Amino acid sequence: MTPLDMSNVHIAILAGGSGTRLWPKSRTETPKQLLDLVDDEASMLQQTVQRILPLVPLERIYILTGPEHADPIAAQLPKLPEENIFIEPSPRGTAPCLGLAAMRLRQEHDGKSIMISLHADHAITREDRFRNALRAAAATARKGHLVTVGIIPTHPETGFGYIERGAPLFEEQGISIYRVVRFREKPPLKRAREFVKSGRFYWNAGYFAWTLDNLLEAFQRLLPEMYARLDTMTGRIATKSADTLWHQIHPVTIDVGIMEQARKVAVVPCDMGWSDVGSWAALYEILNKNKDGNVVLTDGEHVGMDTKNCLIHSENKLVATIGLEDMIIVSTPDALLVLSKDRAQQVGTLVEELEARGLKEYL
Amino acid sequence: MTPLDMSNVHIAILAGGSGTRLWPKSRTETPKQLLDLVDDEASMLQQTVQRILPLVPLERIYILTGPEHADPIAAQLPKLPEENIFIEPSPRGTAPCLGLAAMRLRQEHDGKSIMISLHADHAITREDRFRNALRAAAATARKGHLVTVGIIPTHPETGFGYIERGAPLFEEQGISIYRVVRFREKPPLKRAREFVKSGRFYWNAGYFAWTLDNLLEAFQRLLPEMYARLDTMTGRIATKSADTLWHQIHPVTIDVGIMEQARKVAVVPCDMGWSDVGSWAALYEILNKNKDGNVVLTDGEHVGMDTKNCLIHSENKLVATIGLEDMIIVSTPDALLVLSKDRAQQVGTLVEELEARGLKEYL
Repeated sequence: MTPLDMSNVHIAILAGGSGTRLWPKSRTETPKQLLDLVDDEASMLQQTVQRILPLVPLERIYILTGPEHADPIAAQLPKLPEENIFIEPSPRGTAPCLGLAAMRLRQEHDGKSIMISLHADHAITREDRFRNALRAAAATARKGHLVTVGIIPTHPETGFGYIERGAPLFEEQGISIYRVVRFREKPPLKRAREFVKSGRFYWNAGYFAWTLDNLLEAFQRLLPEMYARLDTMTGRIATKSADTLWHQIHPVTIDVGIMEQARKVAVVPCDMGWSDVGSWAALYEILNKNKDGNVVLTDGEHVGMDTKNCLIHSENKLVATIGLEDMIIVSTPDALLVLSKDRAQQVGTLVEELEARGLKEYL
Repeated sequence: MTPLDMSNVHIAILAGGSGTRLWPKSRTETPKQLLDLVDDEASMLQQTVQRILPLVPLERIYILTGPEHADPIAAQLPKLPEENIFIEPSPRGTAPCLGLAAMRLRQEHDGKSIMISLHADHAITREDRFRNALRAAAATARKGHLVTVGIIPTHPETGFGYIERGAPLFEEQGISIYRVVRFREKPPLKRAREFVKSGRFYWNAGYFAWTLDNLLEAFQRLLPEMYARLDTMTGRIATKSADTLWHQIHPVTIDVGIMEQARKVAVVPCDMGWSDVGSWAALYEILNKNKDGNVVLTDGEHVGMDTKNCLIHSENKLVATIGLEDMIIVSTPDALLVLSKDRAQQVGTLVEELEARGLKEYL
């Protein structure tokens, strides 16, 4: 492997999610990516930044988020240049968000510069492999491809989209890179099993790499109206008219708006020990269990009788349990959530229900 | 029915229990009988007193308890004469406790006076029937019997002792009174079913009536050593030597020490809507359910998705649940208990475990 030039690589971290499925820990004001659920000492955002610092310096790391989280993000990343926090006026999906970031970067950098986009709220255990995949993605982007990193699936998950690979293109950093045939929506279980068995499908984690020119050319061609709005906005993002333009944008993700429609899309497969930490059950899976299979995240104490394979989180409170299996218990100062682990996906619906009932103080 | 003379009836309420199976609400300092779990507006002790005030005035109601609860009891019953709180230096079972109370009463009252003993931590829905049963018990005691009130069983409960009736004796207050053949220990389920089917068995709720003379005669005959100690103590209960004498007493219940051994024991059957509120599951049974079968005891709010037949108690906290059935959730400021309802009896064991681990602050 030849050492790779990363000097013109910029990494944009999407940090605008609300993470409602990790309620009641994840709240409007302190969403999942700002919490230290996975690691006692660093938030998921801080971990994400730490993970890429061996690749690029802080000056070329950008955090993309909403206005309500700019201050806490600046507090969590005190050494990050203030101007590297890109604020989107309101959520409009990842496409306009990344498009605007690319335009702003191109104002100051060469169009052949590479932009990598990541998410602030994922957990990764094999960080070396992850970084190696990003190096390979940068090299592939440099060759003119729109690049996605594909997670080698460990099980037939029905909660993720899949990427179907085609012919092999070349090797970068010891990784075989493939052409992408198509992106697939979240599949039913039977199809997910076929995907995994075939060896030709990867989970779509939403990690991408492009040159600025190639990404913006794709925007211009595939989302011309959005491109025009963003182009008008650029340079006056903080003015009222820029806000107005932004609010007129029809929300769309980069996956649907660009990657699924584009030509010359490549995938870099990687087995990086990845989790989107998309629910309390997903968090349970990646954390260390005690001898009873329980994950206990508590400043207080847990006393369990016949309690197995549960996740228990409490803040400064004794938790006592009897006769529980595969349950999740999360206690915060103002709210308590108890559910069976197989219902973990429905916490988002529960949060919608709280909103519908006007219980805003708990959101 | 002839109106019954209750002017020489005294009622002693045993209020020394610790109610650990209702932890974490029931605590060493505020046990079950001092809590308002069954009724928002009155503790179980206050409800017990209210329930008998139509029978006897406060001057003839006595609360038997330990030194740690004398002050909160006085606070809950501000009109009760202070000297009517009888303090036992340490728990020694109900026999010496009631024996000492009887001796103290006989110092000031005629030996033919009636003493009824009740518990401070039971719930009763048909209070008229309960009071009528006590009137009948007093009348039966006046005829020279040692009297127990038997609860007509509603199901083959294995957690209670049973009373087996013999030949009918006479009628009082419209109730047929029976001779007691024997007391039965908590039975296995098969036997409990036979008991209920036969119609000849009653639950032993620990409600008794005697004349002071008859009770103390039984003590002298059946527990002569204890009788001698109590007799020595009487009149100097607050002195150190009285405490020393008390501590030497071997603990025994009135059921085992007196009632099961005595001659001329009668039972007054009654269907009074009785519950010993002996566990969170028992509390669930007697409280009003919402349309999903849940009992929600909370100052906060409960939002449940697919949550059925649960008891949920929280203090000023939102409780959210998904996919739960037959569970108990109790949240207090410093502790949280979650268990399946069929394990409710084991909360006492859990509290022992907390004690063994030295977690005294939670007891």
